[in-house]
Amino acid sequence: MTGTKTDRAARIIARCREIAGYTEVPGEITRRFLTPPMHGVHKLLRDWMVAAGMTVHVDAVGNLRGLWPAVTAQPRLLIGSHLDTVPNAGAFDGILGVVLGIAVVEELQDKRLPFSIEVIGFSEEEGVRFSKPFLGSLAVVGKLDATNLARKDQDGTSVVDAIRAYGLDPAQLPAAVLSDDVFAYLEFHIEQGPILESQETSLGVVEALVGQTRMQFVFDGQANHAGTTPMQLRRDAMAAAADWIVAVEAYAISHSGLVATVGKVETSPGVGNVIAGHVTASLDVRHASDGGRNVAVEALTAAAHAAGAKRHVQVTTQTQLEQSAVPLDPNLTDILHNVATRAGFPCKRMTSGAGHDAMILAPTIPSAMLFLRSPGGLSHHPDESVLPQDVEAALATALEFLTLLGDDRSKLKDAHA
Amino acid sequence: MTGTKTDRAARIIARCREIAGYTEVPGEITRRFLTPPMHGVHKLLRDWMVAAGMTVHVDAVGNLRGLWPAVTAQPRLLIGSHLDTVPNAGAFDGILGVVLGIAVVEELQDKRLPFSIEVIGFSEEEGVRFSKPFLGSLAVVGKLDATNLARKDQDGTSVVDAIRAYGLDPAQLPAAVLSDDVFAYLEFHIEQGPILESQETSLGVVEALVGQTRMQFVFDGQANHAGTTPMQLRRDAMAAAADWIVAVEAYAISHSGLVATVGKVETSPGVGNVIAGHVTASLDVRHASDGGRNVAVEALTAAAHAAGAKRHVQVTTQTQLEQSAVPLDPNLTDILHNVATRAGFPCKRMTSGAGHDAMILAPTIPSAMLFLRSPGGLSHHPDESVLPQDVEAALATALEFLTLLGDDRSKLKDAHA
Repeated sequence: MTGTKTDRAARIIARCREIAGYTEVPGEITRRFLTPPMHGVHKLLRDWMVAAGMTVHVDAVGNLRGLWPAVTAQPRLLIGSHLDTVPNAGAFDGILGVVLGIAVVEELQDKRLPFSIEVIGFSEEEGVRFSKPFLGSLAVVGKLDATNLARKDQDGTSVVDAIRAYGLDPAQLPAAVLSDDVFAYLEFHIEQGPILESQETSLGVVEALVGQTRMQFVFDGQANHAGTTPMQLRRDAMAAAADWIVAVEAYAISHSGLVATVGKVETSPGVGNVIAGHVTASLDVRHASDGGRNVAVEALTAAAHAAGAKRHVQVTTQTQLEQSAVPLDPNLTDILHNVATRAGFPCKRMTSGAGHDAMILAPTIPSAMLFLRSPGGLSHHPDESVLPQDVEAALATALEFLTLLGDDRSKLKDAHA
Repeated sequence: MTGTKTDRAARIIARCREIAGYTEVPGEITRRFLTPPMHGVHKLLRDWMVAAGMTVHVDAVGNLRGLWPAVTAQPRLLIGSHLDTVPNAGAFDGILGVVLGIAVVEELQDKRLPFSIEVIGFSEEEGVRFSKPFLGSLAVVGKLDATNLARKDQDGTSVVDAIRAYGLDPAQLPAAVLSDDVFAYLEFHIEQGPILESQETSLGVVEALVGQTRMQFVFDGQANHAGTTPMQLRRDAMAAAADWIVAVEAYAISHSGLVATVGKVETSPGVGNVIAGHVTASLDVRHASDGGRNVAVEALTAAAHAAGAKRHVQVTTQTQLEQSAVPLDPNLTDILHNVATRAGFPCKRMTSGAGHDAMILAPTIPSAMLFLRSPGGLSHHPDESVLPQDVEAALATALEFLTLLGDDRSKLKDAHA
């Protein structure tokens, strides 16, 4: 392509901001799975893909897929991320990975590589419309099952209905599944956290996506008059919950790589002059090691019971989600890290605390992820951004990665087999 | 009156339960200030008062007032409590004190006392309808001012409108003020707490009503992704609030006579996988000593700032209510305690953690309060109850108290002057 390196980073950012104009809610960025503004996004990306020499189609779940022809057609590298957003989102979460994928192809025009490239824009990752994330990537690995297809959104529309309403044919879903000639998956994504920024580092190479446990804790004490009930005769559910929340924080701080969060607390009756008789609190625990996470969940559950027992408050728990950690491909990850470092871009090996499409693809296809620093650690927020120099670093790293991948491809495949 | 002592306690309880049938909400006891069911309550109490030889009227704020003639008409003892309830209340809070007042007069028929008795059922104490308690007792001490009369309920009706709608004349409010010949006030009330029950004691003599501070604490941190934000880079408002809530509990436990409560906590955004950026929490602090309360409020405010500072969470506070402690009359209190103890009823000197009409009257008239044990410590609850033997103990104590009061009246008045 023409233009300087500054130009190409600026163009990628400008494209993300242009796509942000396609929204369900004017004045903010809200674009759920297969809602009308997705047509505009498909149109825009298709135009850029076609201009870059790709053949484009939308599969039956709404994933936009552009294929860049190679000299030898068979082996295929998949590059992508997702097109949907959370409500009132920023302009880069997901879409940046798709726009960067197209930019990679644009830069490759004169190159010869021993594989083709498919750039994929997954139709659904955030899980907003159907309270279930990864509908797009689940379809390409053949795991979008009948239960998920029957899910309904808040208007009573099922996933199948949504597919039809968008003008697609659910009967064609099997054709969306990746063929065997895909040998690797690469995803660019903003970090959505403050780690790279805190270390003044442009890029992160993801070694694993953490496992996650989500639970609800219920503290049952006795609601009572805040004035007439002496301290020693109380069964204060909020005091018990607070004691536990402090223990959760202390445990996570003292266990490296662990994050544990109590983000939602509800008091009942929730009146200033009544001792809380009933408190519900969420717990979110994540760790790259499933063993470390399980030990933590056990310890934090015990801490809740201990905090309750001190106050004659009964504690019950319910596990809402248990998701194993997903390691990414060590060879691809090494290559990505080496390439970035050699090119002079500060690059950190790290785990991803959030889920991404790579989590769904990695068990099937050797996968790698490259994080771009998130200024202010911000994501899922209108002020979400990326720095042009980090976009340039990601693009340059990816181009070098592709060159090396061409050289090493047969070795890679053996390593993964 | 006729009947055994068991009969008279049972009759008092039965009368309270009969009055409980007058409610705004069928199936529960909800009777706010000057709502239609109050007419039925007035009618029932008036009938019992008239049968006991009293002359009865309703004053301009809706207080029901029955006068028992004495041999010498002038000095007057006031006995009473309130007629209104909280939503979904029990059958005894307030009304028991009025029904017991009538029972005292019934038992006195043959006696000669050197004073008259006015039994008063205050029209408003709970503060539910106009978000302002004590409208009835404020009127009798001449403190129901224009601001309070202009208050509006949730339907936009003012206190003045409510008075007129009930069939009363606001212009007559000055006539509701107690005349100088009232020399003392006695209030019976359920304890609304667990102290008497925990000490297997029927009665409590109230030495003071505690002072109270109500505040709101706001913890401002930074909402962020629960998976991607490492522990050391968080500004977790809920962790800060929890640390503080534990400190509040520990402080109150280690300071005798103090109660401190965080009953309401709200997290924002209040989602399990997002670190809470914003938490609001209530604080309710009560102590019989204003000095002790003020020191506590200062210490607990400092504790919140310390918990916040540890986590880069900003803390702001707002004081919503500051109410001084109100001592009751020491001489009346001594007499009440001596009488009960001599009669063989276990009786505890204590403070009241809740507000009562006596709090409004005490600065003007020597006042005393007798608590009756609350089974299970329950109040403001449909299961609220009283034990017949405790009702009998209260009635017997009051009758003996009146006899002694007749002997000591001049001494009392001197002591208070």
